Amino acid sequence: MPIGLNLPSNILPIEGIELGCISAEIYRKKKRNDLSIIKLAEGTGVAAVFTTNQFVAAPVEVAKQHLKEKSARYLLINAGNANAGTGARGFKDAKISCESVAKLTGCEIEEVLPFSTGVIGEYLPLVNIQNVLPDLLSDLSKDNWMKVAEAIMTTDTISKAYSKQVEINGKIATVTGICKGSGMIRPNMATMLAYVATDAAVDGIFLQDILQQAVNKSFNRITVDGDMSTNDACILMATGKANNSLIKNCESDDYDAFYAAILDVFSHLAQTIIRDGEGASKFVTVKVENGYSQQDCLKIAYQIAHSPLVKTALNASDANWGRILAAVGSAKAEYLDINKVNIFLNDVCIISNGERAANYSEEQGQAVMQLTEITITIDLQKGNESETVWTTDLSHDYISINADYRT
Amino acid sequence: MPIGLNLPSNILPIEGIELGCISAEIYRKKKRNDLSIIKLAEGTGVAAVFTTNQFVAAPVEVAKQHLKEKSARYLLINAGNANAGTGARGFKDAKISCESVAKLTGCEIEEVLPFSTGVIGEYLPLVNIQNVLPDLLSDLSKDNWMKVAEAIMTTDTISKAYSKQVEINGKIATVTGICKGSGMIRPNMATMLAYVATDAAVDGIFLQDILQQAVNKSFNRITVDGDMSTNDACILMATGKANNSLIKNCESDDYDAFYAAILDVFSHLAQTIIRDGEGASKFVTVKVENGYSQQDCLKIAYQIAHSPLVKTALNASDANWGRILAAVGSAKAEYLDINKVNIFLNDVCIISNGERAANYSEEQGQAVMQLTEITITIDLQKGNESETVWTTDLSHDYISINADYRT
Repeated sequence: MPIGLNLPSNILPIEGIELGCISAEIYRKKKRNDLSIIKLAEGTGVAAVFTTNQFVAAPVEVAKQHLKEKSARYLLINAGNANAGTGARGFKDAKISCESVAKLTGCEIEEVLPFSTGVIGEYLPLVNIQNVLPDLLSDLSKDNWMKVAEAIMTTDTISKAYSKQVEINGKIATVTGICKGSGMIRPNMATMLAYVATDAAVDGIFLQDILQQAVNKSFNRITVDGDMSTNDACILMATGKANNSLIKNCESDDYDAFYAAILDVFSHLAQTIIRDGEGASKFVTVKVENGYSQQDCLKIAYQIAHSPLVKTALNASDANWGRILAAVGSAKAEYLDINKVNIFLNDVCIISNGERAANYSEEQGQAVMQLTEITITIDLQKGNESETVWTTDLSHDYISINADYRT
Repeated sequence: MPIGLNLPSNILPIEGIELGCISAEIYRKKKRNDLSIIKLAEGTGVAAVFTTNQFVAAPVEVAKQHLKEKSARYLLINAGNANAGTGARGFKDAKISCESVAKLTGCEIEEVLPFSTGVIGEYLPLVNIQNVLPDLLSDLSKDNWMKVAEAIMTTDTISKAYSKQVEINGKIATVTGICKGSGMIRPNMATMLAYVATDAAVDGIFLQDILQQAVNKSFNRITVDGDMSTNDACILMATGKANNSLIKNCESDDYDAFYAAILDVFSHLAQTIIRDGEGASKFVTVKVENGYSQQDCLKIAYQIAHSPLVKTALNASDANWGRILAAVGSAKAEYLDINKVNIFLNDVCIISNGERAANYSEEQGQAVMQLTEITITIDLQKGNESETVWTTDLSHDYISINADYRT
């Protein structure tokens, strides 16, 4: 059961973006839509970030290569098969899938970007894909965001989408995004795919800066299990159809409002992945405040967010704060004064200046731990930097989901 | 159920070492022996390594301080309470416990080292300890190794001890060790305590080198859950009663044989911790071979050993090698050529030069995964360095044990 998450509503189309999906029988457990396509109007700017896993999947290699050569017109996305660990044949398969789209649409191979998510180490069922491509293309519509949000899911239990509008120079621009992912989630992208589009006019090179910045504060700040996938990708598209004056840099009119809308969509999508985290029963925000450096804050936040002992205590609603304290101490922060550390569960102060707070009672801690939304705040009293990471507990369901994934 | 582990047998006494234990009612779940003492003959050399957690427990602080001042005569060890996160009072409590031993035995406070393991964040029940000290001291005997091995346990399901003999200059020397630990286990010491003694005569300063070296190849190469405790300690004692010619350095007579015996005891004890790992159903050896650097090998080995996805696949006996491959790729090794990587499950080659081996069949992989002892070998074909790490799977029992620990 996702935490505090309903089916998305009010998802707005983006002028210049059409989407479609179909079943290519790639997904093995049952027949469902598992092949999707996104068509971009000519002139749409495209920015992308990909997994930093060194065992990068074939489609990621191909997409990176194509992005260098041309501006994308089609994104082809399959769920159920990651086309990773498939060597030279996997690379060729990804290329051929792009070529098939190019032939049917009259675009260049390099104008097609391939994306795959699912089981690692199996070859892509290329014929299945080729067979359904004509029907897939005829499904294209600007109103298919929700259908495609569902078609890209793997272990997700709910589809993930979000829209936001913002005024730029008196023009209304829309930002709409979808994503998938619920396990193998950690910083620097995980088994996740995210596609965000806007009709705002944004300079193509600056679009990449915006994407990188937004990803660093959203998808790169979530962790379910600390595992990093071979296929992660996050794409930001700007069609320019809103006819606002071009956003070129941070000084452009209404840039701040625009970036706030973008970050809102990214943060919302990133958090939906955690809320739908594998086996998750809690949505946990880990805030590390007043650290000497951003790096120290992140080290401590991730040490807490990755600790199986903290995560099992969260699962059991056990205010076992000793495990939080042990995680803080083992994060190897460069500047840590353990006698200054304060720790809060929501508003309850547990640790004050490095030891159990005088007024803290076990009952107070337990009351917070019973909640499904918990914020762990670590106040380092060492500087002015702060970082926030979102995570989940570690549950029996996580084990069941991941022990049974291929069976 | 520990994996391939029986109650230790043939544990040999060490001339110059006496041990005792008793119940001080520190352990909350039931009445059992939970307070132990080890007495060292005058002139015994003592070497020690401690946790690198920055939130270091009070007894560790006191023990470090005392070791600087004097040579230890008594080690006082309690299970059930970690005396960590207890601030100034915790430090004072640890000091007072040493003082109480000193008063009764006529030694100096600084000749007593305190050790605690158990729940974090509760004050030590000092009066309980003081009340039983006279009876504890009267229990001292050179034959109590097994009793004390049991008295220091917390979540362990079986006591851990090992003995080995070695000839040095025609004299038989004995090495005997005990340890505890089964969760919060990761490199650089974890919720573990280990006490190893030998009657060999070893130079006091060189003893520390030997300890550090042996720990780096044993206790620092095991991981259950990647969590690091606040209380870990490993002590090596040398009484000199074997009357061998003093081992001063690596050039000393029979040093190699002596070090081999020490490393054998350390490795055996370290592996027993994994075999008794919380919820463990598999004993897993991760070997990374032919790496460019030791650091690259360790990064990859730990990335695999810590991956919840690899560990749940191991638990399910699922040869989901894609997860191993993804872990190799996300380890951020400095020198990795993914097209050269070979991966083996025991003797079965799964990945050859970066992709699925031509002859590999799912049945072969599954056959290995059904075993309780599994070796994952990563051959990097990048250099001459190799490293080995021992770990376990991640099971429902791990969740149950850690969700219920304090209840």
